[in-house]
Amino acid sequence: MSSSVFDHPWLSGLFGDSEMAAILSPERQMAHMLAFEAAWSRACGTAGIFDPALAEEAARAIERATIDFADIAEGMAQDGVPIPRLIAQLKTIAPAAALHKGATSQDVVDTALVLCLREASFLIAGRLMALETALKALEDRFGDTPLMGRTRMQAATEITVWDRVLSWRLPLADHLKTLDQKRTDVEKVQIGGASGDRKALGDQADLVVAEVAKTLGLAPTDKAWHSMRHGLTGYASFLSLITGSLGKIGQDIALMSQQGIEEIALSGSGGSSAMPHKQNPVAAELLVTLARFNATQVSAMHHAMIHEQERSGAAWSLEWMVLPQMMMATGRSLAMAITLIKNVDRIGTR
Amino acid sequence: MSSSVFDHPWLSGLFGDSEMAAILSPERQMAHMLAFEAAWSRACGTAGIFDPALAEEAARAIERATIDFADIAEGMAQDGVPIPRLIAQLKTIAPAAALHKGATSQDVVDTALVLCLREASFLIAGRLMALETALKALEDRFGDTPLMGRTRMQAATEITVWDRVLSWRLPLADHLKTLDQKRTDVEKVQIGGASGDRKALGDQADLVVAEVAKTLGLAPTDKAWHSMRHGLTGYASFLSLITGSLGKIGQDIALMSQQGIEEIALSGSGGSSAMPHKQNPVAAELLVTLARFNATQVSAMHHAMIHEQERSGAAWSLEWMVLPQMMMATGRSLAMAITLIKNVDRIGTR
Amino acid sequence: MSSSVFDHPWLSGLFGDSEMAAILSPERQMAHMLAFEAAWSRACGTAGIFDPALAEEAARAIERATIDFADIAEGMAQDGVPIPRLIAQLKTIAPAAALHKGATSQDVVDTALVLCLREASFLIAGRLMALETALKALEDRFGDTPLMGRTRMQAATEITVWDRVLSWRLPLADHLKTLDQKRTDVEKVQIGGASGDRKALGDQADLVVAEVAKTLGLAPTDKAWHSMRHGLTGYASFLSLITGSLGKIGQDIALMSQQGIEEIALSGSGGSSAMPHKQNPVAAELLVTLARFNATQVSAMHHAMIHEQERSGAAWSLEWMVLPQMMMATGRSLAMAITLIKNVDRIGTR
Amino acid sequence: MSSSVFDHPWLSGLFGDSEMAAILSPERQMAHMLAFEAAWSRACGTAGIFDPALAEEAARAIERATIDFADIAEGMAQDGVPIPRLIAQLKTIAPAAALHKGATSQDVVDTALVLCLREASFLIAGRLMALETALKALEDRFGDTPLMGRTRMQAATEITVWDRVLSWRLPLADHLKTLDQKRTDVEKVQIGGASGDRKALGDQADLVVAEVAKTLGLAPTDKAWHSMRHGLTGYASFLSLITGSLGKIGQDIALMSQQGIEEIALSGSGGSSAMPHKQNPVAAELLVTLARFNATQVSAMHHAMIHEQERSGAAWSLEWMVLPQMMMATGRSLAMAITLIKNVDRIGTR
Repeated sequence: MSSSVFDHPWLSGLFGDSEMAAILSPERQMAHMLAFEAAWSRACGTAGIFDPALAEEAARAIERATIDFADIAEGMAQDGVPIPRLIAQLKTIAPAAALHKGATSQDVVDTALVLCLREASFLIAGRLMALETALKALEDRFGDTPLMGRTRMQAATEITVWDRVLSWRLPLADHLKTLDQKRTDVEKVQIGGASGDRKALGDQADLVVAEVAKTLGLAPTDKAWHSMRHGLTGYASFLSLITGSLGKIGQDIALMSQQGIEEIALSGSGGSSAMPHKQNPVAAELLVTLARFNATQVSAMHHAMIHEQERSGAAWSLEWMVLPQMMMATGRSLAMAITLIKNVDRIGTR
Repeated sequence: MSSSVFDHPWLSGLFGDSEMAAILSPERQMAHMLAFEAAWSRACGTAGIFDPALAEEAARAIERATIDFADIAEGMAQDGVPIPRLIAQLKTIAPAAALHKGATSQDVVDTALVLCLREASFLIAGRLMALETALKALEDRFGDTPLMGRTRMQAATEITVWDRVLSWRLPLADHLKTLDQKRTDVEKVQIGGASGDRKALGDQADLVVAEVAKTLGLAPTDKAWHSMRHGLTGYASFLSLITGSLGKIGQDIALMSQQGIEEIALSGSGGSSAMPHKQNPVAAELLVTLARFNATQVSAMHHAMIHEQERSGAAWSLEWMVLPQMMMATGRSLAMAITLIKNVDRIGTR
Repeated sequence: MSSSVFDHPWLSGLFGDSEMAAILSPERQMAHMLAFEAAWSRACGTAGIFDPALAEEAARAIERATIDFADIAEGMAQDGVPIPRLIAQLKTIAPAAALHKGATSQDVVDTALVLCLREASFLIAGRLMALETALKALEDRFGDTPLMGRTRMQAATEITVWDRVLSWRLPLADHLKTLDQKRTDVEKVQIGGASGDRKALGDQADLVVAEVAKTLGLAPTDKAWHSMRHGLTGYASFLSLITGSLGKIGQDIALMSQQGIEEIALSGSGGSSAMPHKQNPVAAELLVTLARFNATQVSAMHHAMIHEQERSGAAWSLEWMVLPQMMMATGRSLAMAITLIKNVDRIGTR
Repeated sequence: MSSSVFDHPWLSGLFGDSEMAAILSPERQMAHMLAFEAAWSRACGTAGIFDPALAEEAARAIERATIDFADIAEGMAQDGVPIPRLIAQLKTIAPAAALHKGATSQDVVDTALVLCLREASFLIAGRLMALETALKALEDRFGDTPLMGRTRMQAATEITVWDRVLSWRLPLADHLKTLDQKRTDVEKVQIGGASGDRKALGDQADLVVAEVAKTLGLAPTDKAWHSMRHGLTGYASFLSLITGSLGKIGQDIALMSQQGIEEIALSGSGGSSAMPHKQNPVAAELLVTLARFNATQVSAMHHAMIHEQERSGAAWSLEWMVLPQMMMATGRSLAMAITLIKNVDRIGTR
């Protein structure tokens, strides 16, 4: 059982996000890797690099493959990547001559990652919209209620609930707009071959790239992006902007929930083992926690941009450690924020 | 004398950037703050909030003001912001009735910051283009030269100089495109008044905002962004994407410069006090240093998004500590990269 | 299945550490929490706060308890902590009057964490010693071999293998010494009750604390440390110092492994799906990755020190997200370093 | 003029610390570097490596030297270090034959840094004690006053002021104890020569090291620590533990200062340009800001441990960018905390 809060048997009750977890699951990652390999075989068949019939046979076998994860795990410490063992397994069920040739580990792993990001982007978009809607509903219900404006944690002048909640909602609209750009930045097929120059594909490179991209629903590229990681790091920064905006909501609500302030009433707040009467703003606090978590992780993604030469084992695997967690944190933060806002029973100065 | 590497009497020889330093100088910050105050007086005059003649008189006095920085410094530990003392000084030379009223500290400081960012964006854009040009020239001179492709720091298959250098240049084109978006995200006037609701401006709020924005060359806004910091943090993340891309160039060049590898020859490399014969790739190393510096600082900017209520003293001042340094690091990195690339005498496998 | 690299079905082949995973496993965490509750019941029995016979009955029931993790997970999103549900479960099998009363969630969770740290410290100590031994053996075999000293990634003057390897080994001796201090800093029972003042224990507080501490093998404390997190953050910083030292070894070995430099030969290096002839220094790279991972995470632990009032939900849960991962990374880094050093077939200038 | 908050003409009014600034000033750094060079000349004279009379002549000339900082700045971009130019300047006033030979840039710069740290440690120790005293006095005045204990930002059970303030004070006692260990960890002379093996000193190495160490008041070392940075990073982590502990105090006081809570009254709180009646807890907020600043910077120091081979230009200069700022932040935080605690007029539930 996992010691990660996202998968932990009980901590996941607080931190877990089953929809994002499904998107990032090893099974789904493997499905994306196999989808790449099948698309690769077919594209090379179309381009005449592989025998077309063999290629189709290989693609079908890959699509039906059952992969032994434990075997791949055994290869990881040796190879640093899952692909050599995966290909070895595929060779036992598909014609080796129409398999993977011309591609490299990074093509498979990075493209599979991008397919995960695409699915995650849909989930994020949907939740951003749901949260916007929930906040809009809050404004409709309580917008005109007076609220003490507070600057530097001190009472300033009276504003309205609308003023505060608008500062929660407007960033979401910006994030939704940005998401389109971020999707364009990352939803690109990664194809480079051994050293990233597509040399093994000869003058069929553009065709192969176009075919694989089309099959997988990604944009084709003129050049492998294997050693240019700004798209991914930009995407990660964007995730942290989202959780940062939600962290601000959480911090505000935790402050509004204090006795003596009582500017908000929430249903569904948490209990205490020592003081059953307490109503803890657990959801609000979690938004702060997840924001600070991502604000920390984003730093690692920026460090990972220093990706030496044609492939950095060290920088690349740092992404694997961090990016999925940032996605989990973002998914959970959005889901929790929606619940939290829907649980607002009252907001504003009494 | 400063202990900051950017201003330090000798370390600035390595880390300093006089053009970016001028943009971020206290004198220029003050000029922007005064520009805001003058624009404010005039806009409120136009809107009839201030007496128009008094407003013009105030604006002219503000524009000619000589500010006593030491007096403002004295107020900082008390007030946490420079504006109360600045206004007190202005009141001695301009009619108090047509001065600052309806605005608040954050309006002045944030708008002044945005005016700094605008100037910095031009400098960054120019240097991104110059670096692109320098890299293009490198490709023109050496693009066809063979180069050993290296993955996981191991010789892989032969590529060309063009393959490597293109992975240095393409991100710059992306960054240039992104810069336009980032400029739009931040070049917005900040106007909110005491608690950010523009209440003191009554039904003239839109007019005042529009006038101030026009005068300062910024976009108007429907709502103060004082407590929505995603634009700034997005800008900071973007700066770190730039230095990250340049850090990759620096790391590659440092690796290419090693004895036994010798894939690059540089003029202007550094000396050693113990070994005068050594040629140290100081510029290349600096790009790595600055990338890791920004990759660290960016985390603070993401934490600073958790900006409680209508104004967070704690989160806001964290931005002041970090963002100017990120801009200095970005400016220096770009300038150093241009020099470094122009100093390439030879690149590729001998 | 987990998306965490430490538990992932195949990535764990590279990142996993079964011994550290066992120490951090939910089952073991639960065992520690139950050990606290049993010790608590007995200590309160001894102190006469609980009826002694009931207390013993409760303690025995707790020790034999089978806990329903899914039920606890359900409570997490509500309560933010596992303890209310855990106590509810225990109440069904043990006398409520001799159960948990006077303690609070944080007492249980923090003390259980400390028990995990204690076990981890033993594992870390053992591996630090094993790595020291392996490095000493390397010195014995190759110490006198000449090696080119390299500064700023440039050949400087000839040194010996001993000079380089000693700079790898000496920090480990320092870390071993520091570990004792760090153990003293954290191996303290956490007992505070509702608001941390032990009020519910009255004048029996010292006795209860002493008894629980003795039973669990921890130091007693005069005051709950619930809101003083410097011990934990100091421990986390120490973990990152270890991985930082190992990261330096990894970076050096990756550099020494380059073609054209070839100052080291390793058995057991990794393969490539595109280039079967390549020998990738996967283990060396991993040490760099894990060092940069911890160097990032440590920042979150320092942020988590800002632990408001008597208990911060937000800061506390940030620790849960980060500290176990830092322990996993440290454990794995040590294990991988030992393997890597033992795999050195040759080191020094040929 | 500087854009660093620590030196900025008005922001330094909030962030500046003249005593720590003096310790870190370029003039003082230079004095330490010259102290090293003078000690070096004399030690090599004593050891017979330099002619003793020439050595004494050189040492005296070095001690009286006036250094041209601008000339050194010019060399920085070329050399990456100040020493080649410094030595060139010294050669014009002192006999070259008894100057610097056998040492290297890093010996001078690192030893000078350590001399700065030693002075800073005294300042920090004094302030830790003063803050302890101020907190003790607060306990003496208000310790028995009731205070609402708050967990998860919710009222829990009543405690006393003493309970809260003790959680502020106890960490300081721990930090004072740790400081001694940290001083031992870093107050070591750095001597290695070109590649760190002291080869140029032959069998006189131990004598030279001992003499230089004695003169400078540092511990001698058996081996240069140039590429082992855990001592420095441990020291930096310790600085962040201090500011983290003070950040907790600041966060608590900011929360206690809220209207509706009013558990503390402070003299000397800050004003607002828009709302002259407001009393902003500027000092308390600053403690939070500085804690989060250091919590971010500490990450860079941990990254800088990955110090490749015998000297990493990239990792080493990252320390220069970060460590002095961490010291400034720590000094300021301590000074501000002392002021803040002395400004407490009332604490506890009214």
